[in-house]
Order: sequence, then structure tokens, then C-alpha cells
Amino acid sequence: MPRHSAAEARQTRQAIVRLAADVASAEGLAGITIGNLADRLAMSKAGVIGQFGSKEALQLAAVDNAVERFTAAIWTPVADRPPGAERLAALLTRWLDYLVDPPFPGGCFLSAAAFEIDDRPGPVRDQLSQATLRWHLLLEREIRLAIEDGNLPAELDPVAARFQLVGATLALVQSLRLKGEADAVRLCRAAMAAALGSPDFFAPPAR
Amino acid sequence: MPRHSAAEARQTRQAIVRLAADVASAEGLAGITIGNLADRLAMSKAGVIGQFGSKEALQLAAVDNAVERFTAAIWTPVADRPPGAERLAALLTRWLDYLVDPPFPGGCFLSAAAFEIDDRPGPVRDQLSQATLRWHLLLEREIRLAIEDGNLPAELDPVAARFQLVGATLALVQSLRLKGEADAVRLCRAAMAAALGSPDFFAPPAR
Repeated sequence: MPRHSAAEARQTRQAIVRLAADVASAEGLAGITIGNLADRLAMSKAGVIGQFGSKEALQLAAVDNAVERFTAAIWTPVADRPPGAERLAALLTRWLDYLVDPPFPGGCFLSAAAFEIDDRPGPVRDQLSQATLRWHLLLEREIRLAIEDGNLPAELDPVAARFQLVGATLALVQSLRLKGEADAVRLCRAAMAAALGSPDFFAPPAR
Repeated sequence: MPRHSAAEARQTRQAIVRLAADVASAEGLAGITIGNLADRLAMSKAGVIGQFGSKEALQLAAVDNAVERFTAAIWTPVADRPPGAERLAALLTRWLDYLVDPPFPGGCFLSAAAFEIDDRPGPVRDQLSQATLRWHLLLEREIRLAIEDGNLPAELDPVAARFQLVGATLALVQSLRLKGEADAVRLCRAAMAAALGSPDFFAPPAR
């Protein structure tokens, strides 16, 4: 039996988790089965489960992986910019691009998983719920900073605006993926601008 | 072997379909298995499948059942009212009530199923896609009628307004069911009014 280095073990674990998130994006969290992943990775079931201990631990790792990929695509590239309307516009543009061309084969893992898991209490639901809450709080903070820099209406309610931004992205996913609506991206951008009380929000030079 | 009347056969079929829609609301369309339904109805698997011929035919019947229940809760009670803003307000209030207290044990069957099935081509996805399209066209027509009766801004784009109404309801489902956000209903009502360019849309006497 060959001895594996810690680095190799980490790589194996990472490959399993990444595949689990990809599979779940298309087939749901319920699609993450040890047998399914072992087949696709040409590993033994024991080799897959050994890295995690349980299917639930693997699902939790897959959710973490999806959150990391969401954050890396949308927030990380803009995090160092000065706070304000310009950063918010860049963030929302990245969110929209992410939904149109998601880094998961089955579309946005997180929105699909949220609708799948919302009525199944347990650690996976809790983790998705916490990740959603953190994202909503980040959006509200960014909206607040853009109000403070004078580029959004002073009377805008950051919580109401966040609710409507989230709605715009969920409607985009439904319109694009279920209806194939040609105009969905334009409608989403208009809905985001309306949510911010700022019809020209994405027009240059705001972007 | 007892002989069953056509009426009994219809009742049995109806009970299976209704249960299938209930099960799918909590466990997804993938949760509709012949064995699962047979167990819960204390029927043989052959008795369940015999009514439909295939699992796909049963899933299609479950989607039809969910669409009927959605329509019966939201549209049918207001269909005979005079067209215009008052009917639209009643319709949207019913939609909101339906999402807060859905007639399915696992929440709105249709929004969950849409996110589950959007990347699985086939007759079930097509049927959900068509039902979604019909609903969107009905909403756009009702918005147009309310513009024509002078109770919504003349410059409102019915398609953009529909997109934002749909977004508001999807954000409501996420906020209520995943986050348990106390303020979700108020936020949804405000988002709907904003979508219609009419902040007082739900205030009396518009309602």
C-alpha cells in the first residue's frame, strides 16, 4: 500500500468536494452519494467516505466549496476597491455575470440548494441559511456605503433594496434557465437599478 | 377480485396525484417514487403504476395537480371581478398569502420544482416551463389592464413589472423558509408595490 503525503490527501479531498458541489448543482444535494462520487473519481467508496466520515460531512464540505467559489467570483475581485457606489455596481455586475455563466455545470448551486433544503432541518440547511444571511448583510452594508457616498438616494432602505436585488437575481435564474427568456439579463439589470432607486445605476460612468 | 367503478378509479388516481404533489413539495420531483407512494397509500406498486403507466406520467400529473391548486388558490377566486388595479391587488395579495401558508406540506411546489428541474431537459421540465410562461403572461395582462384603467403609471413596462413581481415572491420564499426573516412579508409587499411603480398600491382603498 503506497503511503500518501498530507498534500496528496488534501488534493484528493479537494477533488471530491469540488465534484460534490458540481454534482449537487445539477442533481441537488440529494445527488451527492458516496457511490456516485466514487464511480466518477474511479475511487473506492471507502476512499471517498474515509475523507469525511459521513455523507452529511461531505454535503457540508460541498456547501463550503460552493460558497468559496461564489465569493471568489463575486466579492474577492472587488473587495479592495474603495467602498461606495462604484464597488457596488462592480459587485452586482459580477453577480449577474456569475448567474448567466455559473462556475457550476448545473447552474447556481446555492439558489437551487436553498429551495431544495429549506424544509429539511439539520446542519446542511443551517449552513446554507448562515451563508445566505452573511451574503445579505454584506449586500446591505455595500448599499449603505453607496448611500453614504451620495450616489444612492438618502431615503433608500438598504434592507428593502437588498430584498429586491435578491429577488431580481432569483427571477433571472428562473427566466434564463426555465423559460430561456431572451431579455432576462436586461430585465435583471433594470430590476437591480430600480431596487436601488437609481435607474441609471449601471450606465457609465457609474460603472 | 372486486370490480371497481370508473368513479372509484378516478378517486384513486386523484389521491395518488395529490399525494405525489405533496411529496414533491417536500422531497422534490425526485422524491416521487412508485414505492414511496405505494407505501404511504397502502397500495401495491402495480396498483400505483397501473394508473399512469410510467413514473414520468405520474410526475406530469403531479405538476398538473400543483398548477391546478396554485390557480384555484390565486386566480379562480378573483377571475370574475372587473379587470383593473383592484383585481390585480387582490390577485397579488392571494399570491402572497399562498406563499406564506402554502397548500403543500413542503412549501410552494412550483418554485422548488422549477429550481430542481431547470437543467434536466424532458417533458416534466417542458410542462413546468409552459405553466410558468402562462402565469407570467397572465400577470403581464393584469398589469396592462391596471395601467389602462389609470391606476398604474402609464409609463410602466408590464414585462419589467412582472419580472420584479416574480422576483419579490421568490425572495419571499427564500427569506421566509431559509432565513425565517420576520419582516419578509412586509418586504415582499413593498417590493411588489415598487415593481408596480405605485408605493401605495396595497393601501386602502386600492385594495
